[in-house]
Amino acid sequence: MTDTPSARYRVAVVGASGYAGGELVRLLSQHPAVEVTFLGAGSSAGRTLGEVHPNLASSPLASMQLRPVDDPAAVSAAAELAFCCLPHGASSSLAPSLLDDGAKVIDLAGDFRLEAGDYPEWYGFEHPAQGWLSKAVYGLPELLGEQIAGAQLVANPGCFPTPVVLGLAPLFGAGLIGEGPIRVDGKTGVSGAGRATSESTSFSASDGSIRPYRAPLHQHTPEMERALELAAGVSSAVVFVPHLVPTVRGVVATCYAPASAGASTETVVRCLQQAYSGEPFVRVLELGEMVDVKRTIATNTVELQAFVDPRTTTLVVIGALDNLIKGAAGQAIQNMNLMLGLEVSTALPKVAAYP
Amino acid sequence: MTDTPSARYRVAVVGASGYAGGELVRLLSQHPAVEVTFLGAGSSAGRTLGEVHPNLASSPLASMQLRPVDDPAAVSAAAELAFCCLPHGASSSLAPSLLDDGAKVIDLAGDFRLEAGDYPEWYGFEHPAQGWLSKAVYGLPELLGEQIAGAQLVANPGCFPTPVVLGLAPLFGAGLIGEGPIRVDGKTGVSGAGRATSESTSFSASDGSIRPYRAPLHQHTPEMERALELAAGVSSAVVFVPHLVPTVRGVVATCYAPASAGASTETVVRCLQQAYSGEPFVRVLELGEMVDVKRTIATNTVELQAFVDPRTTTLVVIGALDNLIKGAAGQAIQNMNLMLGLEVSTALPKVAAYP
Amino acid sequence: MTDTPSARYRVAVVGASGYAGGELVRLLSQHPAVEVTFLGAGSSAGRTLGEVHPNLASSPLASMQLRPVDDPAAVSAAAELAFCCLPHGASSSLAPSLLDDGAKVIDLAGDFRLEAGDYPEWYGFEHPAQGWLSKAVYGLPELLGEQIAGAQLVANPGCFPTPVVLGLAPLFGAGLIGEGPIRVDGKTGVSGAGRATSESTSFSASDGSIRPYRAPLHQHTPEMERALELAAGVSSAVVFVPHLVPTVRGVVATCYAPASAGASTETVVRCLQQAYSGEPFVRVLELGEMVDVKRTIATNTVELQAFVDPRTTTLVVIGALDNLIKGAAGQAIQNMNLMLGLEVSTALPKVAAYP
Amino acid sequence: MTDTPSARYRVAVVGASGYAGGELVRLLSQHPAVEVTFLGAGSSAGRTLGEVHPNLASSPLASMQLRPVDDPAAVSAAAELAFCCLPHGASSSLAPSLLDDGAKVIDLAGDFRLEAGDYPEWYGFEHPAQGWLSKAVYGLPELLGEQIAGAQLVANPGCFPTPVVLGLAPLFGAGLIGEGPIRVDGKTGVSGAGRATSESTSFSASDGSIRPYRAPLHQHTPEMERALELAAGVSSAVVFVPHLVPTVRGVVATCYAPASAGASTETVVRCLQQAYSGEPFVRVLELGEMVDVKRTIATNTVELQAFVDPRTTTLVVIGALDNLIKGAAGQAIQNMNLMLGLEVSTALPKVAAYP
Repeated sequence: MTDTPSARYRVAVVGASGYAGGELVRLLSQHPAVEVTFLGAGSSAGRTLGEVHPNLASSPLASMQLRPVDDPAAVSAAAELAFCCLPHGASSSLAPSLLDDGAKVIDLAGDFRLEAGDYPEWYGFEHPAQGWLSKAVYGLPELLGEQIAGAQLVANPGCFPTPVVLGLAPLFGAGLIGEGPIRVDGKTGVSGAGRATSESTSFSASDGSIRPYRAPLHQHTPEMERALELAAGVSSAVVFVPHLVPTVRGVVATCYAPASAGASTETVVRCLQQAYSGEPFVRVLELGEMVDVKRTIATNTVELQAFVDPRTTTLVVIGALDNLIKGAAGQAIQNMNLMLGLEVSTALPKVAAYP
Repeated sequence: MTDTPSARYRVAVVGASGYAGGELVRLLSQHPAVEVTFLGAGSSAGRTLGEVHPNLASSPLASMQLRPVDDPAAVSAAAELAFCCLPHGASSSLAPSLLDDGAKVIDLAGDFRLEAGDYPEWYGFEHPAQGWLSKAVYGLPELLGEQIAGAQLVANPGCFPTPVVLGLAPLFGAGLIGEGPIRVDGKTGVSGAGRATSESTSFSASDGSIRPYRAPLHQHTPEMERALELAAGVSSAVVFVPHLVPTVRGVVATCYAPASAGASTETVVRCLQQAYSGEPFVRVLELGEMVDVKRTIATNTVELQAFVDPRTTTLVVIGALDNLIKGAAGQAIQNMNLMLGLEVSTALPKVAAYP
Repeated sequence: MTDTPSARYRVAVVGASGYAGGELVRLLSQHPAVEVTFLGAGSSAGRTLGEVHPNLASSPLASMQLRPVDDPAAVSAAAELAFCCLPHGASSSLAPSLLDDGAKVIDLAGDFRLEAGDYPEWYGFEHPAQGWLSKAVYGLPELLGEQIAGAQLVANPGCFPTPVVLGLAPLFGAGLIGEGPIRVDGKTGVSGAGRATSESTSFSASDGSIRPYRAPLHQHTPEMERALELAAGVSSAVVFVPHLVPTVRGVVATCYAPASAGASTETVVRCLQQAYSGEPFVRVLELGEMVDVKRTIATNTVELQAFVDPRTTTLVVIGALDNLIKGAAGQAIQNMNLMLGLEVSTALPKVAAYP
Repeated sequence: MTDTPSARYRVAVVGASGYAGGELVRLLSQHPAVEVTFLGAGSSAGRTLGEVHPNLASSPLASMQLRPVDDPAAVSAAAELAFCCLPHGASSSLAPSLLDDGAKVIDLAGDFRLEAGDYPEWYGFEHPAQGWLSKAVYGLPELLGEQIAGAQLVANPGCFPTPVVLGLAPLFGAGLIGEGPIRVDGKTGVSGAGRATSESTSFSASDGSIRPYRAPLHQHTPEMERALELAAGVSSAVVFVPHLVPTVRGVVATCYAPASAGASTETVVRCLQQAYSGEPFVRVLELGEMVDVKRTIATNTVELQAFVDPRTTTLVVIGALDNLIKGAAGQAIQNMNLMLGLEVSTALPKVAAYP
C-alpha cells in the first residue's frame, strides 16, 4: 500500500467475515484506485481481519479491525461505496440508510434481485425497502453495463444465474431458442453454502457425495427468469435442480432449452462468440471443446459452451465459473469499476493457476 | 472359503484386470454358491490376482494366475458361466465361442445392449455376432427378471442407463410422463473412465474439476432409449449430457421429462414406491428426501427420488448408484443369481459404510 | 436376519449416533451370533436408527429407536455386553454401573486406556472409577488376546496407537530398536474428528489442506507409551505429531525409532512377518512394497511396512488402517468376539473395495 | 502486454509443457520487467501455449508456439536468461551451451543441486558438466541471496528441501539443534509427481489414498544435507520419508531434530521470527498456531511453525508451501529477480485465495 495516489475511492465491506467478504477484501486490497476504509461484521466484530481470515495474515490490511454492522452512519461516513455481504434479508434493512446518505451500494445477497412480490414466496420475507428495490440495477456487466454505470444501487447476481443468463440471453436475442421451459441442472462446490458450519457440508459428509438440494424451489429460479427478462426481454419459465459435488469452488450450469428451427451447433457457438467478442471475462469455447470449471478458479472468467442435439431438438448451453469470484466478489468489483468509471477489468484476475 | 458345498457353480471372469473385473472377483470370492475357476486378462496375463489388484492380496484367490483371454475353449472348459469385462468390441468376438460351447455369458461391455444397426454409429464397429445379439437379454433384474432367468446371454446395463431406466419405466407405465424428449444430466465419479491412465483422469486434472464429456454423443444415449422400449414399451428420444465430478465412485442421473396432466410429486413418488416395494436393491425416497450417492458406495443399492415442478410441468427423477457395483459388477452378480436360480441378493451388499 | 440361532448374545451400543457408533451397528447387524437389543444416544434419543444414520435406512435395524443413555439399568437389563461410544469422560461415569450389574463392557473412548495418574494432565479430568480402571484390559487383540478373552472391561485402543504399537512391539521384543525416543508422525482423514461440526473440519476448510493439530500434546501420546509397556515391556518416550489430510477415512502412522546394531531392513521385515503370520487382520508388506491406506478402508485390516535407513541408523515402521474399523468399531468387535469365545474374525471385513 | 517498457529482459522457458513450466509462464507473463521470448518443449513442440495449457488460453502469450529444445543456440539468441524445466538429467546436457553463450540459467531440475560425486548414487547418471556444476549457486533466496545475485547459474531448490532448510538453518545457526540425525516426514500433493500420467497418480488411485513413496532413498535427501551445509555450515545426516496425500498442490515437511539444551518452544519460535523478520515470503507462526498448506496455495509464501517437546527433547519444525510456486516456479522468479537486480518480490503473489 505504498504508492497510494492521493485521490482514491474509499470503500466499505459490510459483512467481511464470510467467504465472499474475505475474497472481496483480498481483491480490493490489490486494487490501485480504491482504499478499504471500513470492514463490518456481525459476531466477528472486534477481531482483526487477519484473525478472521488467516489467509490474509500477510495482507497490508491484516491488522484492520472489523467493526459492528449496526451503525449505517459510520459506514457512509467512512466510504463512498459499500459492498454488502450480509445474509439474505439483512441488507434490505441496512442498505437504505447508506443510500439515503448518498453512498453507492453493491449488494451481494438476494435482497435487490427480484421484484417485491416475489420475496414472500422465495425468500420468506416482505421486502422492507420497495422504493430502493425499484431503483436497483441487476449487476450483470456484460449485458447491463450501461445501466450499472449510472446506478447508485446494484444487485450483484447469484452464482448460478450468472452463467445461465450469460449463456441464454444472446441466444434468445438471436431467436435460436424455441417455446417452452428451460431446464437448468446445476453443480456447485461446497463453498457455495458459505462459511457457517453444518453437518451436511462437513468434509466427512461432502467428500464422496453427489446430491441434489433445495430442488425445485431454489431461490435462484425466479432470479434466472427475471434476469432473462431484463437482459433479453423474454418471459421464460425455468426449473432449476442444483447439486452439491465434492469440490470447494466452482459452479457449472447445464441449460437444456428447446432449439428453434434455425439453431445448430454452428449457429449457437457463433452467436455467443459474437456477443462476447470484446468481453475480457467471457470465454466462448470452440466447437467440440468442453468447459472445465477448474480453469476458472480464483479468476473472474466464465467459460461458455453450446451445442444443439438435433435428435431431440435440444439446445444445450453450459457455463462454468468460480462462485466466489465471477459468481460473487469478482463480479461485484467489476460492477464497482463500472460505477466508479474505472477500467472494467482492474484488479480482476483472468488467468487461472493450474492444476 | 471353509464351508464350501460340493456342488458349486464354476464361473470365469474374462477381463479381470480392470476396476469392474476386480470388484467382480472380490464379490464372487465371497459368494457361497460359486467358485471362480478362471481369470482372464490381456496384458496382465501371467501375473497373479494379488499382483494385479493389491487390494485383493488377502483374498483367498490372491495367488490365482491370470490367463490369456484369447483361448475361448479354455474358458468354457473351466466354467459354466463367464463374465466378460473386456473393452467395447472385444466381447462380441469372444462371447460367441463360449456361447456355442454352451456356457452362459454375462457381458459387461456395450456389445450386446443395442440393436445391430446402432453399432456402426454409436460404437464404431459392425457387429460381428448378430445372431447371438438378437438372443441377448438386457440385464436389468428389477424390470426384466423373468427373461434374465431364462437367458443364456445377458447384456449387463451401463452405469447411467440403470438409474435412468429404473426411474422412468414405471412412470411411463403409469402414464405420468407426457410427450416429448427426455433430458438426462449425468454426474459421474472418475472410476467410470476405467483403469487405463490418461491426463484428463489424473488426480491433478480431475480434482477441483467439474466438466462435461462426450456430449451429446455418449453411447449410453441409444441404450437408454432401447431399454425404455424394452422395459416400458415406449419410444422416447433422449439427450444425455454426462459430467465428470471429483469423486472416485458413484453416478447420479437427473432426468427431466414432461409431466403428464395427472402427475404430481405425490403420484410419482407413490408410483415408484409401489413399483419397487419388494425389491431389495431399490430404495425410493420419501417426499422431500434427497438422494446421496455416498450412501450407495460399495453396495448394490440404487436410490431414486422424484418430484414434479408444476411451474414448468417438468417431472424430475434422480437416481444414484455405485457405478462399479449396481452399475457393473453387482448387477452382473444379481443377473447371475437369477440365471443360476439362486436367491437374487446373494453376496450383494445392501448397506453402505459411512461416512 | 432370517437364520437367527435361538441363543444369540444380546449387545448394546451406547452412543450410537456418532460415526464409530454407526459403523458398529452396521457391522453388528451382520453378525450371526449377536443381537443388538439396545441403542443409546444423547441428543438423538427418540429418533430411529434410520433417521440418525440415513445410510442404515435399509438395515433390518432401521426402525429401532435410540434411547437415552442416562439409565444404566436399562442397558444392563437389555444386554450382556455393551459398547460405549461416548465422548471422553462420559463412559467412566456410565460404565461402572453396567459392570457392577455384571455386564461386559468395551469402551471406545479414552476413559480406560491410561493409568489413573495420567487423566488430569492428558484428558483434563480426575478419573472417577479407578477400581474398574485397574481391571481394564487394553484391547489390542493381536498382542493381548489372552487377557482380552478373560476380561470384563476392555479399553478399545485409539486409532493411532493401534498401528504404532502393532508395528513397534515385536521389534522391541526382538531387540531391533535401540535407546532413545520414538518420533511418530501421524496423518489422518477428517472422520477422526468425529461427527460434530466445526469450521476446521468443514469441506471448504479441509479440502486442499494439510495441517498438524494438537501437537505435541495429543492424548494418544501417553497411550502409545503405556501400550508399548503393556505389550512389549518397554518404557519408551514418544513424541507424536498428527496431521489432518483431505480424505475421510484412514490413518497412517510413520514411526522413527533408533535402529539397534542388528537391525536391517531384512531383519525388521522378517520379524514383523513372523510375529503376525497367523493373524487374519495384519498384513506385513514385503521389502519394497509401500502401504496404502486406501486398501484398508472399510476393513479390519492393518498394513505394516518397515525398513532401516543405515545412513542415519533409523528404523522406520509405517502402519495404515481405517480409523473407524480397525481403529474403532472393527477392533471393538474383534475384542467382543474374543470376550464371547467366538471366532475372532466373525463379521469383520478383510478385503477392501477398490478403487 | 500493452504498456511494455522498451528495455525489458528477454527470458526463455525451456520445458514449458509441464506443470512447473506452465506456472512459470503464467507468472512471467504478468511480470512488468521481462518479456518471454522463447518457449521450448519436447513432444509438445509445434503446438501453441494455449493448446498445451488450456488454462492459459486467455493469456497474452496463448498463441505463442512452443519450439524444440534441442537447439541451444536458438535459446541463447532469443533470451538473456533461461529457465530450464526439463526432466532430471536433461538440463545438465543443455545448460552448458547456454551458459557458454553468456546466458544466465536457472535450472528447476536436480542437475545442479548436488556435488558431482552424488549424482551416480542419487540420480543414476554421471554428471556431464562438472565445471559448471562447481559454479552453480543453490537458489534459496532468503539464505543465499547475495551469492544468487551474482550468479550466472542457479540451481532452484526442490520442493521439500525449501521448507526443511528454511526451517532448520537458523536454528542450527543459533545452536538450538543438538547432535544426531534429522528425521524429515514429508506430505505432498499429487502435482509433485508432474504432468506425466501413471496409474498411481490417477484420480481413482490417489483419492482416498495416503501412502509413502521412494523411502528412504528419495533424491531430496542429499539435497537437504548439502543445503544445510551451504546455508548453515553444518554436516547433518537426514532421513526423509515422503508421503502422497490426496490434494493437488502443497507440501508439508515435518522435521524432527534433537533439541539442544537451550532450546524451548519460545526460543525456537523467536529465533525463526528474527531470522525472517524482513522477508516478504516467510511467515513464522506464533506459539500455538498451526501451519496450513491451504493458505500458501498459488502464492510464493512459506509458513513455518516450531516447537520443542521437552518429554523427548525433540525440536519439531514444520514448513508448508505450494510445491509449484515457492517450491518451483515462484522461487525461480524470485531468483531471477535477484539475478537481474529487480525488486525481489516482483510478480510473486503473497496472499492466497481462500477457501
